[in-house]
Amino acid sequence: MPLVKSWVSSANSADHPFPLNNLPYGVFSTESTEPRCGVAIGDMIFDVTAAEVDGLIALSDEPLFDLPFWNPLMEEGPAVWAALRDRLIALLAEGSDAQHKIEGLLIPQDEAEMHMPFAVSEYTDFYAGRHHAQNVGTMFRGAENALPPNWLHIPIGYNGRASSVVVSGTDIRRPWGQLKSPDQDLPAFLPCRRFDIELEMGAIVGTPSDGPISVQQADDNIFGYVLLNDWSARDIQAWEYQPLGPFQAKATATSISPWIVTKAALEPFRCDTPDREFALLDHLKDCGPMLYDIDLAVTMAPEGKDATTIARTNYREMYYSAAQQLAHHSTSGCPMNTGDLLGSGTISGPTKPERGSLLELSWGGKEPLTLDTGETRSFIEDGDTLTLTGAAKGDGYSIGFGDCTGTVLPALSDPYAR
Amino acid sequence: MPLVKSWVSSANSADHPFPLNNLPYGVFSTESTEPRCGVAIGDMIFDVTAAEVDGLIALSDEPLFDLPFWNPLMEEGPAVWAALRDRLIALLAEGSDAQHKIEGLLIPQDEAEMHMPFAVSEYTDFYAGRHHAQNVGTMFRGAENALPPNWLHIPIGYNGRASSVVVSGTDIRRPWGQLKSPDQDLPAFLPCRRFDIELEMGAIVGTPSDGPISVQQADDNIFGYVLLNDWSARDIQAWEYQPLGPFQAKATATSISPWIVTKAALEPFRCDTPDREFALLDHLKDCGPMLYDIDLAVTMAPEGKDATTIARTNYREMYYSAAQQLAHHSTSGCPMNTGDLLGSGTISGPTKPERGSLLELSWGGKEPLTLDTGETRSFIEDGDTLTLTGAAKGDGYSIGFGDCTGTVLPALSDPYAR
Repeated sequence: MPLVKSWVSSANSADHPFPLNNLPYGVFSTESTEPRCGVAIGDMIFDVTAAEVDGLIALSDEPLFDLPFWNPLMEEGPAVWAALRDRLIALLAEGSDAQHKIEGLLIPQDEAEMHMPFAVSEYTDFYAGRHHAQNVGTMFRGAENALPPNWLHIPIGYNGRASSVVVSGTDIRRPWGQLKSPDQDLPAFLPCRRFDIELEMGAIVGTPSDGPISVQQADDNIFGYVLLNDWSARDIQAWEYQPLGPFQAKATATSISPWIVTKAALEPFRCDTPDREFALLDHLKDCGPMLYDIDLAVTMAPEGKDATTIARTNYREMYYSAAQQLAHHSTSGCPMNTGDLLGSGTISGPTKPERGSLLELSWGGKEPLTLDTGETRSFIEDGDTLTLTGAAKGDGYSIGFGDCTGTVLPALSDPYAR
Repeated sequence: MPLVKSWVSSANSADHPFPLNNLPYGVFSTESTEPRCGVAIGDMIFDVTAAEVDGLIALSDEPLFDLPFWNPLMEEGPAVWAALRDRLIALLAEGSDAQHKIEGLLIPQDEAEMHMPFAVSEYTDFYAGRHHAQNVGTMFRGAENALPPNWLHIPIGYNGRASSVVVSGTDIRRPWGQLKSPDQDLPAFLPCRRFDIELEMGAIVGTPSDGPISVQQADDNIFGYVLLNDWSARDIQAWEYQPLGPFQAKATATSISPWIVTKAALEPFRCDTPDREFALLDHLKDCGPMLYDIDLAVTMAPEGKDATTIARTNYREMYYSAAQQLAHHSTSGCPMNTGDLLGSGTISGPTKPERGSLLELSWGGKEPLTLDTGETRSFIEDGDTLTLTGAAKGDGYSIGFGDCTGTVLPALSDPYAR
């Protein structure tokens, strides 16, 4: 499918992240408006909350856009998701007779502040990228034992903390935590010294389920995708994670991109999961291409300095799709709800510059990176800004998510001084 | 403090779980009313939703009891919690001049159906009972390596699944899951064969926080306590839990008692945590008695047969208090919200009949229990009803939680047949 032209002219360039083919969903405010629902088109945001009030969008007897998050639309299910997309295309496509009604509802993106696009019900993070699992496993257990025995049979995941999910642009305060230095016998309570990123995609559950669901049903239930940075305190994690997994190491913050890219927009970019050493059990088997060809990158910018691209990879490097993760998540009968967020797990490619975490890029701190500024980094330093970007490249157009960025602030001098 | 008498005469017997000293909070419905907020007093439920409408309770400009959960009160904070308790005591104490107004707002408990007493925001489960950790560790790693190195320094916990928390009385469907039988090389997708209980207490966060909080502040923020059964699929857990902890093994269901017992009701039963081999770091140190002396028991009843008490223990066996768990949970800056539920971890005492799980009681299935009916059990069989009870024993009165019970139904014959 080629670029579909919009009367919003900035949407029609081949490398713009928000052409008419995309139409991602966000929540924005301006100096004069409270947070409300909007759709990115070119350099503008279409105020769909106002459009619904004006009767330009009417999908339900009840308003769907009167709250500052997209969950009410998500709850409506795939038929209404498709109806909204059709309506938005009709309104915004070149030649639309609604142009004069809509021009007053377009807000320049550079005048808007972005907010969380949806209310996160619960957050689950997976560990389903093979190169990442192989790298981390090799560092901790040696190459022979890198992958745990279950890894090739189920998408390993753990429940994260929904309350810690924040929108791109939110500053991230370096956490304190209990950790044990290698040269000490006993742990201490200290600011994290090995603070890291994890380059991930997040899948958002739209349609709830209440019992085991198939991979196809899981794919049907997914509403859309965001970029996701699972900030990780490696030294806190090393001390706490046995035997019940990561806990406070992952609870400081998880940043997501401001725009939810819908499954419909990503449809042309579907691709297969990789070949498998062991066939998956029937309930997890692929039933079609359920990964997406999305180029991903990470940049790091020391305070006041230019950014260096430190990693480039692609979402198709995942071993398990989000649909397989959601299907596995439901096997026990676990109820899954609208607004549940599933992190893919860190996405790394096979070569060193494709690694999606500093832990891997600096090989546990043993091989520090050199930035374009000449500085070196093993882990994040105070003032560093880390930014994830993603784009699916179509025939003369791109599908983007907006940056997923965050600046790391110094740890509090005394976290209990209040 | 002795029993405080109520004009509701059934509340005045020494072993009744719901004297005026207790006043626990629940949500109930009857044949003629939708779910609403109520307070247990003797054999009755005081309809506080109706009492607020009638103007008998007026704590806020906005109604606090017009929704079928207690979160709005919890959000009001300790001063309003205390004001409600004072008002309830004034209304329900012997000699109250409001008796004639309230008699019409009392519903017999045996005519009511109980519902979830609060909306669970997020659910965290800990592993903070020493005898349980020692027992489980001994089974899996030998007595020498039973406790992980971090165990005596932090309350180990993992995030559970809030969507799976159900109220007592809800039937529990035996889950399917991926597991690997010891005699097989590869895993299979099968109904769980080692389905188990975990006897726990749950602490409910009332006041939110957004940064590290002290143990004292954490104690102040806790609203109340429930009994909690963390249903566990041991065979699914054994296959999935390395390296990121339990996931689907714990996601089928977690049952809680229908009544939230407030911190105020439990105040006379405060007791200290045990002596420690290693002093805790300052931010986790005890700052007063923050455990409670609550007798706990578990019964098992095969389908259609009498129940056998299979375990008796006490909440004071915990190594870490809920306040210490909540303080640890906040160290990373993790935002904690009204309605967050913290499971204590399985509570076992030092001797065999004090063990709070079948895994420990049957020592991994090697030493099956014999019930009073003559049947034996290693793990739960279909049709079994498991019930937790708890009571703090005061001077001529008891503080109860109501039963926390559930019956295990057979696994679906084909979980994907729909």
